[in-house]
Amino acid sequence: MTGPLEGLRVIEVSAFVAAPMGGMTLAQLGAEVIRIDPIGGNIDIGRWPLAPSGTSLYWTALNKGKRSVTLALNTPEGREIATSLIAEAGILLTNLPAAEGWMSYATLTARRPDLIMMRLTGTHDGGNAIDYTVNAAVGFPVATGEDERPINHVLPAWDVAAGLYLCTGLLAAERRRTRTGQGGEVTLALSDVAYATAANLGYVADVQVNGAVRPPLGNWLYGAFGRDFATKDGRRVMLAAISNRQWRAIGKATGLAEKLALIGQVMDVDLDDEGGRYAAREAIAAVLAPWFATRTLAEIRAALDGSGVLWGPYQDFGQMVREDPRCSAANPLFQQIEQPGVGQVLAPSSPLQPALPPRPAPRLGGDTDAVLAQVLGLSPARIAAYREAGILAHHEG
Amino acid sequence: MTGPLEGLRVIEVSAFVAAPMGGMTLAQLGAEVIRIDPIGGNIDIGRWPLAPSGTSLYWTALNKGKRSVTLALNTPEGREIATSLIAEAGILLTNLPAAEGWMSYATLTARRPDLIMMRLTGTHDGGNAIDYTVNAAVGFPVATGEDERPINHVLPAWDVAAGLYLCTGLLAAERRRTRTGQGGEVTLALSDVAYATAANLGYVADVQVNGAVRPPLGNWLYGAFGRDFATKDGRRVMLAAISNRQWRAIGKATGLAEKLALIGQVMDVDLDDEGGRYAAREAIAAVLAPWFATRTLAEIRAALDGSGVLWGPYQDFGQMVREDPRCSAANPLFQQIEQPGVGQVLAPSSPLQPALPPRPAPRLGGDTDAVLAQVLGLSPARIAAYREAGILAHHEG
Repeated sequence: MTGPLEGLRVIEVSAFVAAPMGGMTLAQLGAEVIRIDPIGGNIDIGRWPLAPSGTSLYWTALNKGKRSVTLALNTPEGREIATSLIAEAGILLTNLPAAEGWMSYATLTARRPDLIMMRLTGTHDGGNAIDYTVNAAVGFPVATGEDERPINHVLPAWDVAAGLYLCTGLLAAERRRTRTGQGGEVTLALSDVAYATAANLGYVADVQVNGAVRPPLGNWLYGAFGRDFATKDGRRVMLAAISNRQWRAIGKATGLAEKLALIGQVMDVDLDDEGGRYAAREAIAAVLAPWFATRTLAEIRAALDGSGVLWGPYQDFGQMVREDPRCSAANPLFQQIEQPGVGQVLAPSSPLQPALPPRPAPRLGGDTDAVLAQVLGLSPARIAAYREAGILAHHEG
Repeated sequence: MTGPLEGLRVIEVSAFVAAPMGGMTLAQLGAEVIRIDPIGGNIDIGRWPLAPSGTSLYWTALNKGKRSVTLALNTPEGREIATSLIAEAGILLTNLPAAEGWMSYATLTARRPDLIMMRLTGTHDGGNAIDYTVNAAVGFPVATGEDERPINHVLPAWDVAAGLYLCTGLLAAERRRTRTGQGGEVTLALSDVAYATAANLGYVADVQVNGAVRPPLGNWLYGAFGRDFATKDGRRVMLAAISNRQWRAIGKATGLAEKLALIGQVMDVDLDDEGGRYAAREAIAAVLAPWFATRTLAEIRAALDGSGVLWGPYQDFGQMVREDPRCSAANPLFQQIEQPGVGQVLAPSSPLQPALPPRPAPRLGGDTDAVLAQVLGLSPARIAAYREAGILAHHEG
């Protein structure tokens, strides 16, 4: 099996989450993604969490399936090799702020006129930004939890979205270049990803049109019925119903359909409407809570699985890894692989299935010689000379 | 200006967030995206929030720039028209569970052998799932906030990521088809998006290799320095430093560099290491908190903007829309547009810039006649006959 992006070559000069995740996503689809780092690694090489060996579990997780090249990027020769690799590949993915230097679009297109350059920035107007500061600006932390004290998300959702926007934009640009010969520079501001998404979900219009600022709703689902419930054995589950079919499934599976139907009369709302269920949510939850509180998670699972009810247990990361078969090699998404510096780890392929099997992250710089030979046609003697001059690392990774 | 996906035609049969956002993202890049709905709309047509007219702000925000066709999909004739549109376009994007019926891959490829079918499911093993239940399973809600009581995210981050994965997968599949003639069915399980992302960020390996389950850290940043701070005027700001450069910028901009340097000695850690700063985070925050508490947001902005410090104010959705110039037409991302059923709203283009101007969502069914004429070549008489037979709506939207 080959991936759909077989034959596509991309140079990545990156750090942290968004751009590396973008490159990894392309590699998982079969592209040859060559990440170039300075000798010793970029500033994300030691990002926590770490394995006992000191190898970053974060870096290895975000760079699976790539090739790794390290160069003395603080030297003209190192930058020249990087420039040649970019010119040869014709596609550059980066989040580094080198727009004015050797890695500027103008400089690079002098060498490769139809270059596609995907560039992630902080804000559209040149400000710096990371997931944490972007998230603070876009309303979600204030609307999270029970009160207006902001609560940060733990998932770097804007980085994840930005990484996937970069993939989409890169493939769109490459499609155009194939048809027209035209390359181009595409810029993606992390903060624009967040503002656009808030608007795409209706939050901006709700303020503009209704003057409504979504308040914190705890774990309630907005505009329909949904909430978390405690179980008899100290677990919690999330329950939700958006469509009428999902709503009726709850009544049927719990045997509480008649009681739930009475809530419509009690509360004067139409329970066949998601807004009616939202208005009556406290009363609905009061009827359902004892059902969950008197059953163990296993009993709840037996009653609800296959019933059409939308529900699921909350799990911490440990429960997810140790107890959930969907987060194991029983799911075609995952395989155990040997990750250099780390050992045996459960690694996902692309969730776009069927997918290529997962591959480990490279050792830092581990593909340098092979890439310089294959992509640039450098001779062993030339490579040795660069190494002697300190342009290439002697030992790395 | 034309978008990079000019000439690409996609049929979308969808509801809610992920698949509609995927189709919209492609439309923003210039693709012709035709969303087919049952007459009267799919189950997301009335999803909250609503405009005073009753038009869904959510539906209009998630379907910008598409064409809308409505058909009596409960009739053989309606399904035949839909099938013809799918066969003609050659690409179908869907999250509806019709895998066994007329919209199955096997049935559709009998009409269009090189069809590309992008299908979003709940779980990989056939279970149903939505963002809320998926999120509960993957550890983040338990790790959010100050204690282990789970806190749901408000952003449907898994839906957003899934929508963008669908775009990436669709363009990758279309690239392959262009080169090899080979179509295919690509399945994306919403829960796999979440499990894969948790693994891609190192959470799975941290449990497997270190036995470490990331605990709730409130608003602290993990493994480096970052936290929220209260200002003199009752606002809160997020402050972060991951790299050494960002860390030194904080000391310089606040004038507290000398005091902060002493913390390394006091706490016996190396503050030139992100792990050292994480270990000493309480002491660092204790030094910084009074600096923020004695300054207004405006004073903090004056001191920190342009300093290289990573920071930003928390804003609720109202403050974001009313006070933040980056969420306004001053940002090239946004334009005021006239949205039928809603009025003037601020609409984003694609954050991949430069971008096509934002376009409003269609009226439900508003493009039916034009699409049937242009794509299928149906005559006005034929269309009128379908309308007479109830296969097409008389009035809609």
